[in-house]
Amino acid sequence: MIRVGLVGYGYWGPNLARNFNSNSNCNLVRIADMSDKRRELAQRTYPNVDVVDDPARVTTADDIDIAVIATPVFTHYDLAKAALTYGKHVWVEKPMTSTHEQAIELVDLAESKGLTLMVDHTFLFTGAVMKMKELVDTNELGELYYFDSVRINLGLFQHDINVIWDLAPHDFAIMDYLLGPSARAVTANGSGHFATGLEDVAYVTVFYDNNLMAHFHLNWLSPVKLRRTVIGGSRRMLVWDDLNPEERIKIYDKGMEVETKEGLYRILATPRIGAMHSPVVPNTEALTLEVDYMLSCIANKQKPFNDGAAGARIVAMLEATDMSLRQQGKLVELKH
Amino acid sequence: MIRVGLVGYGYWGPNLARNFNSNSNCNLVRIADMSDKRRELAQRTYPNVDVVDDPARVTTADDIDIAVIATPVFTHYDLAKAALTYGKHVWVEKPMTSTHEQAIELVDLAESKGLTLMVDHTFLFTGAVMKMKELVDTNELGELYYFDSVRINLGLFQHDINVIWDLAPHDFAIMDYLLGPSARAVTANGSGHFATGLEDVAYVTVFYDNNLMAHFHLNWLSPVKLRRTVIGGSRRMLVWDDLNPEERIKIYDKGMEVETKEGLYRILATPRIGAMHSPVVPNTEALTLEVDYMLSCIANKQKPFNDGAAGARIVAMLEATDMSLRQQGKLVELKH
Amino acid sequence: MIRVGLVGYGYWGPNLARNFNSNSNCNLVRIADMSDKRRELAQRTYPNVDVVDDPARVTTADDIDIAVIATPVFTHYDLAKAALTYGKHVWVEKPMTSTHEQAIELVDLAESKGLTLMVDHTFLFTGAVMKMKELVDTNELGELYYFDSVRINLGLFQHDINVIWDLAPHDFAIMDYLLGPSARAVTANGSGHFATGLEDVAYVTVFYDNNLMAHFHLNWLSPVKLRRTVIGGSRRMLVWDDLNPEERIKIYDKGMEVETKEGLYRILATPRIGAMHSPVVPNTEALTLEVDYMLSCIANKQKPFNDGAAGARIVAMLEATDMSLRQQGKLVELKH
Amino acid sequence: MIRVGLVGYGYWGPNLARNFNSNSNCNLVRIADMSDKRRELAQRTYPNVDVVDDPARVTTADDIDIAVIATPVFTHYDLAKAALTYGKHVWVEKPMTSTHEQAIELVDLAESKGLTLMVDHTFLFTGAVMKMKELVDTNELGELYYFDSVRINLGLFQHDINVIWDLAPHDFAIMDYLLGPSARAVTANGSGHFATGLEDVAYVTVFYDNNLMAHFHLNWLSPVKLRRTVIGGSRRMLVWDDLNPEERIKIYDKGMEVETKEGLYRILATPRIGAMHSPVVPNTEALTLEVDYMLSCIANKQKPFNDGAAGARIVAMLEATDMSLRQQGKLVELKH
Repeated sequence: MIRVGLVGYGYWGPNLARNFNSNSNCNLVRIADMSDKRRELAQRTYPNVDVVDDPARVTTADDIDIAVIATPVFTHYDLAKAALTYGKHVWVEKPMTSTHEQAIELVDLAESKGLTLMVDHTFLFTGAVMKMKELVDTNELGELYYFDSVRINLGLFQHDINVIWDLAPHDFAIMDYLLGPSARAVTANGSGHFATGLEDVAYVTVFYDNNLMAHFHLNWLSPVKLRRTVIGGSRRMLVWDDLNPEERIKIYDKGMEVETKEGLYRILATPRIGAMHSPVVPNTEALTLEVDYMLSCIANKQKPFNDGAAGARIVAMLEATDMSLRQQGKLVELKH
Repeated sequence: MIRVGLVGYGYWGPNLARNFNSNSNCNLVRIADMSDKRRELAQRTYPNVDVVDDPARVTTADDIDIAVIATPVFTHYDLAKAALTYGKHVWVEKPMTSTHEQAIELVDLAESKGLTLMVDHTFLFTGAVMKMKELVDTNELGELYYFDSVRINLGLFQHDINVIWDLAPHDFAIMDYLLGPSARAVTANGSGHFATGLEDVAYVTVFYDNNLMAHFHLNWLSPVKLRRTVIGGSRRMLVWDDLNPEERIKIYDKGMEVETKEGLYRILATPRIGAMHSPVVPNTEALTLEVDYMLSCIANKQKPFNDGAAGARIVAMLEATDMSLRQQGKLVELKH
Repeated sequence: MIRVGLVGYGYWGPNLARNFNSNSNCNLVRIADMSDKRRELAQRTYPNVDVVDDPARVTTADDIDIAVIATPVFTHYDLAKAALTYGKHVWVEKPMTSTHEQAIELVDLAESKGLTLMVDHTFLFTGAVMKMKELVDTNELGELYYFDSVRINLGLFQHDINVIWDLAPHDFAIMDYLLGPSARAVTANGSGHFATGLEDVAYVTVFYDNNLMAHFHLNWLSPVKLRRTVIGGSRRMLVWDDLNPEERIKIYDKGMEVETKEGLYRILATPRIGAMHSPVVPNTEALTLEVDYMLSCIANKQKPFNDGAAGARIVAMLEATDMSLRQQGKLVELKH
Repeated sequence: MIRVGLVGYGYWGPNLARNFNSNSNCNLVRIADMSDKRRELAQRTYPNVDVVDDPARVTTADDIDIAVIATPVFTHYDLAKAALTYGKHVWVEKPMTSTHEQAIELVDLAESKGLTLMVDHTFLFTGAVMKMKELVDTNELGELYYFDSVRINLGLFQHDINVIWDLAPHDFAIMDYLLGPSARAVTANGSGHFATGLEDVAYVTVFYDNNLMAHFHLNWLSPVKLRRTVIGGSRRMLVWDDLNPEERIKIYDKGMEVETKEGLYRILATPRIGAMHSPVVPNTEALTLEVDYMLSCIANKQKPFNDGAAGARIVAMLEATDMSLRQQGKLVELKH
């Protein structure tokens, strides 16, 4: 049985522990966390798991096959590098690393060792995103006009990354999954209101191939919580409201009918109003599917679609937003 | 009794006609429109009003004291100039003119003739905006952190202006009213998907004094209609949902409590969750109040707060968005 | 051209005046109202219409073909009887009369004179109800299990009728239209909280053929306004939310899958969760269609489906609720 | 340390196990369930707890101080009686028993033995109900006019009880808590659509002292899930929407202003529209507080407010609904 070790039992770690623990194709054998309090909680919840303080007991130990890394971003590179070096498959939280250079180094290391390196972009395993992928792949929406995402709430501030690094990886990864690696340029504006100087409100625009513009509103200072994405297509339009579990995806048979007319008061386009359809979106926990998927990728020596290379592309986009922020929203081209 | 003439009986004209007609301090005496169909409708609704095709019968006629101009934007300057030249007070729809230069010329002309020139920024007369003005003036919200506005719907495309010129004047005028003339720089991104080339989806960021960032999402291609503004302040936060007549304004006693801590896993700020309060917002039709206000300004020789100078500032901002759009979102400074 | 006279320019009268006035197949020639203020308003809005105070100028005059009666309920019988006696077609507001006996007398009188007698159950001409009629007639919903309607708001109290007589006619008429005359028994509970003693909160249950139970929550004392109807069917379920113009009708492919099992903890039925569909519901003003329909019924000597007989059935149901209220919710059988 | 045994690890049992297990003032020592599958799940989750199949190992064992009973309703009486006989405090799920007679017998037995008998009406420990209790006790709402509750969803059918016995105990217990034992009479209508004959849609009206009418809509066949209660008071009105965690309680400063007027068209009452206020409602898990409360009641020999006597009153009301259902909604008086 594949043996799993988890580093980091903070905010997200417990969900990882629960899912790896309940999967019958692997054993959760060890959890490492530097906090006494978190270790105590982990031990109480999993009396049969080995709970330790030293991350090396996961990343370099002989009895671990998969190292799951759920620690602050700036530690990802070192921990993942150690684990790969010691022959472990790696599951790392998003964003993958602090720099694109680090990410590429990990990709190369995993490649050379024949190990699976997977970045946890959980949303890709939700019923909603799988449905959107299907709709895009079958051209149900037609030509894509725009992608508009709002992720705002009164936030749990992170002390080491700004709101873009915290929230945008979700959207960047979803777009990468839906469209493939077609992002071309990035612009970002934002502002921070507290002593850290880190942006807590930000707006990011990404330009993709084929005249597709995507826009992301990311905000830790909103009195209301919204998780809403609108996709405008030439054939249909879609709204994904992740906080509405009963009608998570709505597909609108709406659009514009355009005629060319002349004269002073002429309207050039009129709305086409059609029915709305809300398909069934499975509610299976995404993390459960993702753990299954990783185990299957390892067993079948298959490269996951959310592999290190995909994770690295997201980090490249995040670096580009930093560069744009420093230049008052200047357009930054992405090199691939 | 003050005599009113209206030029333009298209989309908005009927609302103006109804409000000027029902105000007991003025007489609606003439309506001009170039379309046979619109004239017929006007005459049927107002059998006692003189309905004509030539706008000059309003702008240059002896028996008109106020010329109300509700025609396409590119005609505003000529019509308003004629009316002012012939000694009429002018009510002109937003945006005031196609260029800032034209706007300034009209302001100077009105000034020199001692005439009232008022730009119809209707939202300034809604209960919601009046309530927000009160909250800002009394510092109920504290220091303002951001202003985020979403105006999206499946649109009535305009043939002569893009979605920014159509929808952003509302927000620009509201901000100008709330904060005074403190906009410093503008950036805009957008894209158009039809033959006109005019942007139908756009994002505009405006930088105000005191580190206040405002962002506007303007969209004619959205399957859902939203009119929502969020204001984040250091003391309280506010949501204005103009499509929710029962709870149009919500004030949240929410914010972030910030402490400086050290160490790896420390959170620097925690949410402060307080009550929400939705005050009574009067439902009086804004246009009714605005017509009253213009008549009172004329009677008292008082300068309206939505005067030509305010209208000109809005046009300057619109011009800046055009410039930014042409340079891929480059920051454009506003000169005042 | 058919000549129309309107009695009553109160709450609903202006809508009737506007629609009859703008229909090109009839002439609105006279409006009668006993209030000086309402007459003044009517005259200002319709300078070319004859505005009078005496209802007899409509009900008995030679130059009127259709008498439209929009006065308090207790006056309907006398006014409609006079109009029919003087050979006029009659449009009367709901509820048709104060008693079933009066209603039947009017039906007989209209019959004997060959005149059209139509009761204004406006909702039957809305896109939403027409869509529901289509779904019921084509068996899209399957066998009907229940009909649940909520009509609550902070109300405009009526001084002469209770909340059931005010609001239930809408639902009773919709059910009569959807199902035909199949109501069998009625039970009602309610309470009044003010000096009039009239019920301002009430619950009505109606039993129809085929084990169908309908329930109506009627309330003038609610802090929120709701207009929502749920229909449960064996094949599909439907929600009609009349305050949500964008998604007025939602059809759910949901139901229960029932298996017979044995044993202590066995569940007998599991939910079947399918997609939701919101069809396009035309937004044409119902009253506009209803005025057209009456004119067409008169022209073609066709009996309207919302004729006096239908109106009389609704009054019989209202009388039954009164009887049930007086006996603490006792079941009252309906005789047809 | 107080030792806890749980009987029943089905739908609700895992929540009880989790809360008793994590409370530091008691030990969860044993779980009994007749299903192999459920026992396996329990053992996996709690490797250190004794998992058995025989309920007597909880109800009659020497090493158990509190027996927690979370089994089908018809088994409650026997299990609770055994546990009390063997000197254990009892926590029993709602509804307490199948008959009022059984409930009274348990109350007497607990009384004679000096044991704590508590019925799990979880909602009484939610922030929302605690806030409502505070508002009623301080007369913030004024005189109560009505209480209207809607609990509908596409249901998990129970094989042994109808929808009233499943869902109404929540509301009956909340009313009993808010108002004390003041229910006077009950009427119920309902219908069942499947082979069991058990009602799956039902409407219950309860009459309380002081002209207060309460109404409950209970439905397992609804395409949408609602958990909404409206309370109308003379001073304020309240909406509790349990599915809206951000604005669970809304208090409306609304009501009717009543004047006595004369004449045909006079309105007797006009709405008073005031602000809406949504207070902070703590999100602490109700079960956590309830477990604490039971332990504290036992320690302090204090009678819980949700004791057997309160549970028995709820069962008496449920029995009355059965009687009313069998007589087509006849009013059934409650004897206390």
